[in-house]
Amino acid sequence: MNYRAVETTDEYVASLENGADWRAEIESLADTVDADAAWFTALGAVQDAELWFYDQDECEYYPIEFDEPLEVASCVGNVSWLDSEEQSSSSSRTQSDDDERFAHTHAVLSDDEGTTYAGHLNEATVWAGEVHMRVFEEPLEREYDETTELDLWL
Amino acid sequence: MNYRAVETTDEYVASLENGADWRAEIESLADTVDADAAWFTALGAVQDAELWFYDQDECEYYPIEFDEPLEVASCVGNVSWLDSEEQSSSSSRTQSDDDERFAHTHAVLSDDEGTTYAGHLNEATVWAGEVHMRVFEEPLEREYDETTELDLWL
Amino acid sequence: MNYRAVETTDEYVASLENGADWRAEIESLADTVDADAAWFTALGAVQDAELWFYDQDECEYYPIEFDEPLEVASCVGNVSWLDSEEQSSSSSRTQSDDDERFAHTHAVLSDDEGTTYAGHLNEATVWAGEVHMRVFEEPLEREYDETTELDLWL
Repeated sequence: MNYRAVETTDEYVASLENGADWRAEIESLADTVDADAAWFTALGAVQDAELWFYDQDECEYYPIEFDEPLEVASCVGNVSWLDSEEQSSSSSRTQSDDDERFAHTHAVLSDDEGTTYAGHLNEATVWAGEVHMRVFEEPLEREYDETTELDLWL
Repeated sequence: MNYRAVETTDEYVASLENGADWRAEIESLADTVDADAAWFTALGAVQDAELWFYDQDECEYYPIEFDEPLEVASCVGNVSWLDSEEQSSSSSRTQSDDDERFAHTHAVLSDDEGTTYAGHLNEATVWAGEVHMRVFEEPLEREYDETTELDLWL
Repeated sequence: MNYRAVETTDEYVASLENGADWRAEIESLADTVDADAAWFTALGAVQDAELWFYDQDECEYYPIEFDEPLEVASCVGNVSWLDSEEQSSSSSRTQSDDDERFAHTHAVLSDDEGTTYAGHLNEATVWAGEVHMRVFEEPLEREYDETTELDLWL
């Protein structure tokens, strides 16, 4: 287990824009407040969603799409820097122009019968969303991890 | 996306009372500590539950009832001021005697097979509940939003 | 409702070790940073899992086992002291050599179709995990509660 002490420099609540993308809205908040690392929880509703499931044998994400209104019963995630050009490079890296803030977002969604669907949230059209974000002093940067073939921090 | 910087003035952990209502207990905590705005996460178990699903076409909540013991696998929400008499008024408003603290509460519940049900938690009888609440300096007040016909803050 | 003001002394982010146990990793973090009480949220993926459901009539936990890769769509919990020898003793107690840090952990898991399973997480083999933990100044200690036959704090 790798860990790091962090210090919260500032804290925000946000109301996501109806019609916008859920994850892009969170990344936009992180960009706006210049967050080098952050942790968030959220709740709300979306008009559709694309969840991703990570196949641990193939080391690939597979999409699961939902084209219906869903509650966001839970949403937990964090913001860190990710090299958008070299997401799977094993070379050591430094922050570059290709780096962008990535909101790693997991969500639990539910339909009109209370039935739930969950996973890694790639995209979803906001109906309404309420977010609490804590911004950390210490930056987090994702790097390629050979065991999982994921970009992990620490 | 609308956002606001907030400052945490105080922080609490609470153990909810067996037999009481889950959401009312959280609102009671907010009342007791005089919170004008707060964010919470929680876990525990309930003896029954009423979830609400928001129909985005009809702009109405529909209840989904469960009369069985369920784990509270996740609970995320926030506390803000809501005008209890004029919840759907589009007129501009100021804080009044009708205002009350509202704990907007989403939850993921699960049964004895691990099957899950989730949504907006209206009410549920506490079996046991553990809550972490952060109270913010800045008040949050919900007002009628024409697009969603929900009472939103910010 | 019982509540207590707490003060956060320090805050951590952690990346859980592939192949280790999810809950043990969180308890290891709490041990390492000498946490007498903490609150955490987390996300990630596991290679298998054992959830527990609490039967409120029998006052017993029953296991539900999953032998497949699952996303951790949500994880909320807290760390407190628990007497490992006398978990169901109704006698008043003081901290002893048998006390150990217990991470009370609830999780929502999901499979390759987005189907979810949730409950009290006893154990799970980490694929990848990201945790945010707040450590409180004030210790939390669990004691036997006669109504629920659970070890509760406060």
